[in-house]
Amino acid sequence: MLFKVEMQVNIPSSLPKAQADDIKAKEKAYSQQLQRDGKWPHIWRVVGQYANVSIFDVADNQELHTILTALPLYPYMEITVQPLCEHPSSIHNQQ
Amino acid sequence: MLFKVEMQVNIPSSLPKAQADDIKAKEKAYSQQLQRDGKWPHIWRVVGQYANVSIFDVADNQELHTILTALPLYPYMEITVQPLCEHPSSIHNQQ
Amino acid sequence: MLFKVEMQVNIPSSLPKAQADDIKAKEKAYSQQLQRDGKWPHIWRVVGQYANVSIFDVADNQELHTILTALPLYPYMEITVQPLCEHPSSIHNQQ
Amino acid sequence: MLFKVEMQVNIPSSLPKAQADDIKAKEKAYSQQLQRDGKWPHIWRVVGQYANVSIFDVADNQELHTILTALPLYPYMEITVQPLCEHPSSIHNQQ
Amino acid sequence: MLFKVEMQVNIPSSLPKAQADDIKAKEKAYSQQLQRDGKWPHIWRVVGQYANVSIFDVADNQELHTILTALPLYPYMEITVQPLCEHPSSIHNQQ
Amino acid sequence: MLFKVEMQVNIPSSLPKAQADDIKAKEKAYSQQLQRDGKWPHIWRVVGQYANVSIFDVADNQELHTILTALPLYPYMEITVQPLCEHPSSIHNQQ
Amino acid sequence: MLFKVEMQVNIPSSLPKAQADDIKAKEKAYSQQLQRDGKWPHIWRVVGQYANVSIFDVADNQELHTILTALPLYPYMEITVQPLCEHPSSIHNQQ
Amino acid sequence: MLFKVEMQVNIPSSLPKAQADDIKAKEKAYSQQLQRDGKWPHIWRVVGQYANVSIFDVADNQELHTILTALPLYPYMEITVQPLCEHPSSIHNQQ
Amino acid sequence: MLFKVEMQVNIPSSLPKAQADDIKAKEKAYSQQLQRDGKWPHIWRVVGQYANVSIFDVADNQELHTILTALPLYPYMEITVQPLCEHPSSIHNQQ
Amino acid sequence: MLFKVEMQVNIPSSLPKAQADDIKAKEKAYSQQLQRDGKWPHIWRVVGQYANVSIFDVADNQELHTILTALPLYPYMEITVQPLCEHPSSIHNQQ
Repeated sequence: MLFKVEMQVNIPSSLPKAQADDIKAKEKAYSQQLQRDGKWPHIWRVVGQYANVSIFDVADNQELHTILTALPLYPYMEITVQPLCEHPSSIHNQQ
Repeated sequence: MLFKVEMQVNIPSSLPKAQADDIKAKEKAYSQQLQRDGKWPHIWRVVGQYANVSIFDVADNQELHTILTALPLYPYMEITVQPLCEHPSSIHNQQ
Repeated sequence: MLFKVEMQVNIPSSLPKAQADDIKAKEKAYSQQLQRDGKWPHIWRVVGQYANVSIFDVADNQELHTILTALPLYPYMEITVQPLCEHPSSIHNQQ
Repeated sequence: MLFKVEMQVNIPSSLPKAQADDIKAKEKAYSQQLQRDGKWPHIWRVVGQYANVSIFDVADNQELHTILTALPLYPYMEITVQPLCEHPSSIHNQQ
Repeated sequence: MLFKVEMQVNIPSSLPKAQADDIKAKEKAYSQQLQRDGKWPHIWRVVGQYANVSIFDVADNQELHTILTALPLYPYMEITVQPLCEHPSSIHNQQ
Repeated sequence: MLFKVEMQVNIPSSLPKAQADDIKAKEKAYSQQLQRDGKWPHIWRVVGQYANVSIFDVADNQELHTILTALPLYPYMEITVQPLCEHPSSIHNQQ
Repeated sequence: MLFKVEMQVNIPSSLPKAQADDIKAKEKAYSQQLQRDGKWPHIWRVVGQYANVSIFDVADNQELHTILTALPLYPYMEITVQPLCEHPSSIHNQQ
Repeated sequence: MLFKVEMQVNIPSSLPKAQADDIKAKEKAYSQQLQRDGKWPHIWRVVGQYANVSIFDVADNQELHTILTALPLYPYMEITVQPLCEHPSSIHNQQ
Repeated sequence: MLFKVEMQVNIPSSLPKAQADDIKAKEKAYSQQLQRDGKWPHIWRVVGQYANVSIFDVADNQELHTILTALPLYPYMEITVQPLCEHPSSIHNQQ
Repeated sequence: MLFKVEMQVNIPSSLPKAQADDIKAKEKAYSQQLQRDGKWPHIWRVVGQYANVSIFDVADNQELHTILTALPLYPYMEITVQPLCEHPSSIHNQQ
């Protein structure tokens, strides 16, 4: 089941750089594991912003919430979620 | 070069149904040709709305504008365009 | 899987009353069937508006989209969808 | 009398973790007591956010205000309130 | 139980003047009856707009909805409703 | 001359509680004096918020500004002002 | 007593040109009479828009409302009103 | 050449009162000199807010920018600028 | 003197195509004359929209207003104007 | 390939002046190098604001992102990006 998720990152300047770097490294590892698992099939950077547009493919709403709130950068993010489904004009439809 | 494009369709009730159906059929054919050409790699329906979230992969801004304004449903659409680039955490990066 | 759906109805004054009444009767029957099927467990009227706040319980995003776009009043509605999940403080949690 | 209440929680990073955990524990106990009393019949988590959508069933506006402002997390919440009533298509109507 | 209700009136220019005048006369009579009944204790005109700020005093949400949707001008109004309660600094408090 | 004034209070958590309590006590006394003087005929609490909806009855714009900026909580408030006048349907009109 | 009033004019294309010209001529005469009377001391055109920024000097809210709703273009205007008073740094203050 | 400029002042509570008073005194002197020079012909206080509505009469955009950024309170202001010109109905037009 | 002007074109579907084509041809000729005169040094199309971003170089506000309101497409445009001046980091500064 | 980029600068008052001056000097040098390279052909100051409107001419989205995120003032900026292309009425079109 697909969702578009947009994440805007706002790391406060008061966070020590070493700590911020550590969180970012964990975020990258966590994201890449989910990408390899097929849960997070797409992630793109928004030009000019510390933000991304992502597509998640999860079993249900609960799984998506669990994944998002476990993001190492979650406390510093604004997140919007939009449920998607098959577009009737898509050439990739399974039906 | 990647862009997220969001399209909201508003067909006026004054448009005769036969004409609307004809435009939608042309839109579907046009969209599927661009998908097969690799210019329009993703299109998803937004749940509960006559709208889509799409990813375009084009040579430049000019090509994207030419493609979008040639959409048969273009006169009935609100379109927003957001330029994307590689996310440093993506496992699909080419660099 | 739960979703909050808010629907705002805007029936144009140009729609003949008999036709509007027919659509509303179909909407009521369609809604009540979905309520009896357990797909639409809650529907409330927003005070002072021709609008409702609803909770849907569906198998997935696709089913929700199919249900919503088949609403007889769909062409006259503005719809917003928000995915929900279990709240850790709820006394009704299944886990 | 029914109200939809949406609560967005913003705990400042300057609040010590032990204190925050204590407030959250009190919030959970307070919420569950109101749920058992039938005053707070529904609470759902919004996917991807530290927020909830709730339905309250209270005697009047004053009772709702008293309940909400006594929430242990109240100082850290943005709250919106929308009065609801019976929807004529609901199969649960009492009239 | 008190509510602030704000009403913005938008009568379409296509409505014949005689019909509009008839609706306005019915609106005035309906409003004044509710004022005399104590249900609609305050109504003020917003300077420079075809709009009003009103205070309603009703038994519950359902009664307010019934009153508002029966306004002769209801089909031409945008209405917002805000539940109020006693202010602790008011000199008119009953407690 | 009537005005609707809406006040939203945001007391920063850095303000010591004793100081905040002192300001609130002064605010209450100041407000009640103005109510007794007939300058501030109505004040209601907005349900679920640290906010009020008020009606002021003053000689002119200048007097309203002087009253509002002298509120002990003024430095912590967001204030919106809307000029009102008699509604032609009011049963309390003086003309 | 001073007010800033901003007026945005939207004349529908369905209004016959002769009728529109007649309304505009009446608007100009009406505005100039009020300017000569000192009620409407300033009117400026907003660059690039069919809109103006005006200052009114009236006895009270009621007079302003009466003046504005009698504008020949009133049915085609969006109007916002903001009460003003003396600025303590003004060199024109009367106190 | 005329511009409407709206200034909203937000002095942080962390600024020492003596320093704030000094800046305000400089602001007043600076403003009054520009008023006497005819560059800043109007300044009004917005009722209920630490804000003003002003009219500037300057040689060009560059001069306006230079004047505004030299305001002693500039670091604490939100400023919006709107270019104005003669209104064809004004009785003060020079043409 | 420089201004950024953004124009959004909304031609109603009720305008006959021959008339729309005639207006567009006049718009193009008018725009190109102003470009050749140096009054309208830049015009770019916004990707995916019937809109442009333009830079005007005019003597004063009045000239800009006269130019914009004489655009053949003016009745079908939403226009926003923003005054610009030299940026201190520009390598093209004249001072 | 052209983009309109708007940058709003918000330097926190907690940043020491010497450090802020150093960042601004680096920003100016960096900007001027990009201007000389033809990557940043236009930069204008927005009147009354610490903000600019810029035009970038880059090879692709990725290059624009790399340039923007390397701005010395980037951590203190809000940036919006809008892709542009040739306007059919421009006298500078290359086709």
